[in-house]
Amino acid sequence: MTGATLARLAAEAGRPEPPDKRPVVCIQGLGFVGAAMSVAVASARGADGEPRFTVIGVDLPTDHGRSRIGALNAGRFPIATTDASLERAMDEAHAAGNLLATADTTAYALASVCVVDVPLDLEDRHGSPALAIGAFRNAIRTLSDQIGPECLVLVETTVPPGACERVVLPELERGFRRRGIRAKPLVAHCYERVMPGPRYLESIVNFWRVYAGLTPEAAQAAERFLSCFINVRDYPLTRVGSTTASETGKLLENSYRATTIAFMEEWGRFAEANGIDLFEVIDAIRLRPTHSNMRQPGFGVGGYCLTKDPLFAWLSSQELLGRADLDFPFSRMAVEANHAMPLVSLDRIQELLGGALEGCRILLLGVSYQAGVGDTRYSPSETFVRAARERGATVTWHDPMVDHWYEMNEQGPRELPGAAGSDVVVLAVAHLEYTQVDLTAWLGDERPLIFDANRVLSDVQRRQVAEAGCRFASIGRGDT
Amino acid sequence: MTGATLARLAAEAGRPEPPDKRPVVCIQGLGFVGAAMSVAVASARGADGEPRFTVIGVDLPTDHGRSRIGALNAGRFPIATTDASLERAMDEAHAAGNLLATADTTAYALASVCVVDVPLDLEDRHGSPALAIGAFRNAIRTLSDQIGPECLVLVETTVPPGACERVVLPELERGFRRRGIRAKPLVAHCYERVMPGPRYLESIVNFWRVYAGLTPEAAQAAERFLSCFINVRDYPLTRVGSTTASETGKLLENSYRATTIAFMEEWGRFAEANGIDLFEVIDAIRLRPTHSNMRQPGFGVGGYCLTKDPLFAWLSSQELLGRADLDFPFSRMAVEANHAMPLVSLDRIQELLGGALEGCRILLLGVSYQAGVGDTRYSPSETFVRAARERGATVTWHDPMVDHWYEMNEQGPRELPGAAGSDVVVLAVAHLEYTQVDLTAWLGDERPLIFDANRVLSDVQRRQVAEAGCRFASIGRGDT
Repeated sequence: MTGATLARLAAEAGRPEPPDKRPVVCIQGLGFVGAAMSVAVASARGADGEPRFTVIGVDLPTDHGRSRIGALNAGRFPIATTDASLERAMDEAHAAGNLLATADTTAYALASVCVVDVPLDLEDRHGSPALAIGAFRNAIRTLSDQIGPECLVLVETTVPPGACERVVLPELERGFRRRGIRAKPLVAHCYERVMPGPRYLESIVNFWRVYAGLTPEAAQAAERFLSCFINVRDYPLTRVGSTTASETGKLLENSYRATTIAFMEEWGRFAEANGIDLFEVIDAIRLRPTHSNMRQPGFGVGGYCLTKDPLFAWLSSQELLGRADLDFPFSRMAVEANHAMPLVSLDRIQELLGGALEGCRILLLGVSYQAGVGDTRYSPSETFVRAARERGATVTWHDPMVDHWYEMNEQGPRELPGAAGSDVVVLAVAHLEYTQVDLTAWLGDERPLIFDANRVLSDVQRRQVAEAGCRFASIGRGDT
Repeated sequence: MTGATLARLAAEAGRPEPPDKRPVVCIQGLGFVGAAMSVAVASARGADGEPRFTVIGVDLPTDHGRSRIGALNAGRFPIATTDASLERAMDEAHAAGNLLATADTTAYALASVCVVDVPLDLEDRHGSPALAIGAFRNAIRTLSDQIGPECLVLVETTVPPGACERVVLPELERGFRRRGIRAKPLVAHCYERVMPGPRYLESIVNFWRVYAGLTPEAAQAAERFLSCFINVRDYPLTRVGSTTASETGKLLENSYRATTIAFMEEWGRFAEANGIDLFEVIDAIRLRPTHSNMRQPGFGVGGYCLTKDPLFAWLSSQELLGRADLDFPFSRMAVEANHAMPLVSLDRIQELLGGALEGCRILLLGVSYQAGVGDTRYSPSETFVRAARERGATVTWHDPMVDHWYEMNEQGPRELPGAAGSDVVVLAVAHLEYTQVDLTAWLGDERPLIFDANRVLSDVQRRQVAEAGCRFASIGRGDT
């Protein structure tokens, strides 16, 4: 394969050739973050109303990667989304012709900026979590083989603190040495807070970014780049003192979130045991500005971030920073408590059914990790279903945002199934469809146990359940 | 002692007799809460501009109690305060003549409402914390001997959940039976969030109250009463389903607070070890509405509330509610972590001084539990001083709000002492005076280690320290 030119990449993508004069931005990784970033950066306009950048989204030549690349080149956003503004921005980028996608890594050679949006996961090492940093390191090594000396490498991936200094920089320096480049690589870190859902694109454009560079030049370059597509007038950037500080910021945010959720669990159990409706108490407390962010007990914590990020600073202390003495008792306990949460619902259901789940037919409503999204990664429903089946229950499921449940390799029904044939109906995710269903009509003559595991049902719906004469139980609420 | 009349109580207090027609409100306990509540309730005015209530503050006939009673009757607020509006309200109540104080418990017989503001502490039972509910129970018993059948008993004390149902009601019923009263006592709970400091009175009047009654009548009576002196237009009341729910609300608030503070500790240590300024990271994160309440690492957590409240639900589960199976891992760990926090500063200082504190002269600036208040109860400075002296250090201290340190039985200097003769200066409390001192002038030729344990110093002051050539270290900040 010869060196990339825009002409060749465009031809291979079946797209018109973008004008040569614009700086090229490569987005490495076209997942939930990278795909949306590609569109956001392609949407940046100069004072003349013309696109600021030619954006090249790069993913791996796997089936998954090729399907995303094909979608982007065909003008389709590669991930199902309810965000109309993102779809619109995708259309505009396609029409403007400044967004290409490819699996050809020589594209990085054209880039003024490479944005790193590849995953960095945990792995199980002898029963303990450990940093699975290899794939991330490989991605950086790929960049180090291709990028020019002036290219800014902007890491958006959530990484263990110290990664830019101790992984990214050395890899790039090694590549530069190999290629006889004497310049010091330009490396910056800026974490994203992308939220798939109805405000997917907005969560990139309208958000307070924190960033840092390994050098002042890198920080400066990052600031210039970020200011091109982020609404910095209303959401000013914050530069912090080091990439390690910026990396820590993201983890601190998510660890805080995970801990404040896990903290609520003990109060949920207390409320259930003592006839308290904890939600009315929480709603009252949240009126105070000092407590407005209080979380509430629920079905569990899933998704790609909160389930792993709170372990990163601890693991980095051990594996990267040489500070194994640093313990993270709250963050670690939060991950454990949150992971075990769906089993609290299962245990309670088992208790309500007289102590055994053998032969019990459960209808689970909601398998994504969050209301309004179809992402099932590390979803609490997976934990719930696996445990319920182990205990002898039959579980069927539905999710309006999920047809194929990737992790379980199961297909769900498109339409909400009826209650017939279910001993228990578990409301696990507050998808709009579930919060609006008329339960009187839906229940008909069926009288399953209704278990609201995630404050899904409205007061009206709870009255419908009561009027139907169904047994009802709820996480966070005791029998009063 | 014969039954109380307003005439007799007024005469004994050396005050004019209030008009007979107004409902009488008794405030039981004239501490930080009860004293301010007395003034707040006395300030309530009817549509005619006349006082709504005659308020009788009642305290014990101890030296402490009598001194507060004497102060109130003399028109002085019994606790040092920087709140001018509270002083003004005190003056007005004195002029209006509708605020009396007494140790005579027969006063309760006159009351339409008794507000319970007595303490409920923890005690050590064989090395473990336990509810010290005896004094609270005695206070309720005193009421049960005196109050009329229609009197509303409104508990403001932070109590273990279940206390209104399982302690207050049975005690009152026992008293009523003894006295041949057949009515069911009217009991309600409404927790306060009084903050001594410059907005002391406002923290009563302008705050979102949560309340509940043991019966609908009690809840109704509580609502009527609270609406007389709380700005319910801007801070609407929230009625919850049971007194246990209301009792839990207060504990949940304070446990949340204590946990979010304790959580920051592990990040403070991490920052110190890795050259991060955690405060700049936290400031950046706090821009997000979802994270605006994030706390920061510091010197420790003191005061009467956060040090004990997070244990109440756990202890109540064991002692009152028969649910010893309910554990509170986050809340309990938070109390432990927060209690140990001042020792983190001490250990760090010891390390900076080469490993030993023997003979080290420490000047501690700030001994109250919080900036802007003189309350030293359960202050982290106490833990710090005791441990430092045990390790052989000499500790002198200053606090602009504290002359006599009650818990240590020591007198401090009125004026900020100089740095001469100190090896270490510890900034423990962000009192205004400390944040404004010119450190260049204050240090003169002295070069102690400056240890900012609580983000007290401004950037300007930190530059002054650096320019003076002093060694500097800080909680939450690593050497960069």
